[in-house]
Amino acid sequence: MSTSTLINGLPASTIPVSDRGLAYGQGLFETILVSAGQPALLHAHFDRLLQGCQRLGIPDQGLMDALKADIAGLSLPAGDAVLKLIVTAGSGGRGYLTPNPANPNRIVTLSPMPAYPDQPEMGIDVCWCETRLAVQPALSGIKHLNRLEQVLAREEWRHTNCREGLVSDTRGFVIEGTMSNLFFVSEGCLHTPDLSGSGINGIMRRQIIAQADAWGVQIHIGDYCPEQVMAADELFLCNSLNGIWPITNLGEHEYPLGHMTLRLQSLQLQRKVK
Amino acid sequence: MSTSTLINGLPASTIPVSDRGLAYGQGLFETILVSAGQPALLHAHFDRLLQGCQRLGIPDQGLMDALKADIAGLSLPAGDAVLKLIVTAGSGGRGYLTPNPANPNRIVTLSPMPAYPDQPEMGIDVCWCETRLAVQPALSGIKHLNRLEQVLAREEWRHTNCREGLVSDTRGFVIEGTMSNLFFVSEGCLHTPDLSGSGINGIMRRQIIAQADAWGVQIHIGDYCPEQVMAADELFLCNSLNGIWPITNLGEHEYPLGHMTLRLQSLQLQRKVK
Repeated sequence: MSTSTLINGLPASTIPVSDRGLAYGQGLFETILVSAGQPALLHAHFDRLLQGCQRLGIPDQGLMDALKADIAGLSLPAGDAVLKLIVTAGSGGRGYLTPNPANPNRIVTLSPMPAYPDQPEMGIDVCWCETRLAVQPALSGIKHLNRLEQVLAREEWRHTNCREGLVSDTRGFVIEGTMSNLFFVSEGCLHTPDLSGSGINGIMRRQIIAQADAWGVQIHIGDYCPEQVMAADELFLCNSLNGIWPITNLGEHEYPLGHMTLRLQSLQLQRKVK
Repeated sequence: MSTSTLINGLPASTIPVSDRGLAYGQGLFETILVSAGQPALLHAHFDRLLQGCQRLGIPDQGLMDALKADIAGLSLPAGDAVLKLIVTAGSGGRGYLTPNPANPNRIVTLSPMPAYPDQPEMGIDVCWCETRLAVQPALSGIKHLNRLEQVLAREEWRHTNCREGLVSDTRGFVIEGTMSNLFFVSEGCLHTPDLSGSGINGIMRRQIIAQADAWGVQIHIGDYCPEQVMAADELFLCNSLNGIWPITNLGEHEYPLGHMTLRLQSLQLQRKVK
C-alpha cells in the first residue's frame, strides 16, 4: 500500500504556511493502529483528541463526525496499517491570539505499518536519555504538536542498539519513553509514572491500567526515581501501534520476560476495536 | 502591499503535511522589521537562527546565504513591513528521529506592518498571566516553533484592554511578555529577567543591554518575583517589530513614562541595520 492523505476530507498533501499547527504547534495528533480493516480503539483516541482540543482552544463541534467521515473515505487495508490524525487550529488570528472562531484543519494520513524484523515484542534494549522533560501541567497528558523534547531525546541514541530511551522530568522523576509509556512490576504490583506534570497519557497505558484493575492487580501511579525503576522485577513499554514491548535490557541491567508482561501481551490490547 | 511568500526561494503558500515543523515544531522563526527598504538587525536575527538550528539538529550549511537570496528576491517596500522567516527540519525521518542529513525548508513571508492607532509607544496597560512557562534549559532563549505556552497565555487577556501579558515560570519568577521581553528600572539600575530556563532572548533585548552597557548604566540579569517587578520606578517591553513600549499600567499599579525608557526609545534601536 502507498500513503494517502486527506485534508479536510479531500485528497491533498500540503497545508498553508499560515497554519497555526506549523507556526506555534497549536494542534494535536493521534497515531492509530489499523488492524483487520478497522481503526483500533478509535473511541479512546477521539476522547484524548477532544481533551486536547479543549485545552488548546480548538473548537470541536462536529469534529469527530468529520474525522469519522474522513476515515470512511480511505480504503483501510485488511492487514495492519497506521492512521495518523492531525487537528490544528487552522490559519488566522493575530500573532499568538487564536482566531475566534477558529477554523480547524483535519489531516488524516494512512500509511504502511513499519516492519520490525528484529521482533521487539520478544524484548528490547532501552537506554536512559539525558534530555529532561519540563514540568508543564497545562500541556501534560495530551498529544499536542509541541514535541521538541521528544526530538532531542530521540537524537541521543541514534548510534546505539537501543530501541527506545527513557526520559525523566527536570525534577528527576522517570516519565516515559520517547514514544511509549512505561510500566514496571515490583513485588506483584504494577507501577507507572504519574503524568500530571509531563508526558503523554497513552491509549495503551489506559487500556493496561483498566485491564490490570479488572484482574484485581494493585496499581500504583506515582513519582519514581531511576533507581526504583531499575530495581523492578519486570518492565515493559507500550504504545498504540506496537502494543507491549518488554524491556530485557536497561542500561547495565538485564530483566526477564516477566509473567505480567506476557499475560498482558497475550491479550493483544492494541488490536481491540472498543 | 499584499503578503508574499517564498518557499525555498520559489513563490508558494503551502508546505507538505509531512514537514517536521508541523509534526513536532522542529523549526525556528524570526520576525524582522523592514524599515526604509532594509531588514533591520538582520545579522542578529541570523545569529539567533543559527543558534537555534544547532540546538534542534537542523543543518545550517549555506542556510544564511539562501535566506539572503530569498530576501533579495522579495520587493521590500520603502515603508515599514514585516519579514517572517521560518526554517524547519523538512520532511522525513523515522518518527521523532531527525533524518540524516535533514533537508531544511525555508519559508520567507513579507507582510504589511500592523497599524496601532492607539499609540502603544506612549504607554500600555499590561496584565499578569496565570499561564506558567515550564523550565527547559534545552529550549530556552531560541525562537523555536513550540509556542503553545504563549498561545495559552495570550488567550487569558482576550477580553481586556491589556496590550500585553507578563508570564512567570513554574518557579514563580517573571520571565517576559507573551511577545516581548521585559525591562525595569530600580534605583537607576536596569533589570531584565534571566532567560536560561525559559523565554526567548529577543534581538531588541540584546540591543538594549548593549546600549545600556555603552552608556555605563548598571545592568542586572536575574530572577525576579512579581513584587520586585511591581516595585520598579519604570518598566518597558520590547520586541523587534515594535521597539519599546513603556508600561504605564500593570495590574493595579500605574507607572510614569520614565527617563531611561524615553532615552532608549529615542534611539529607535529597532530600526538599526547593524
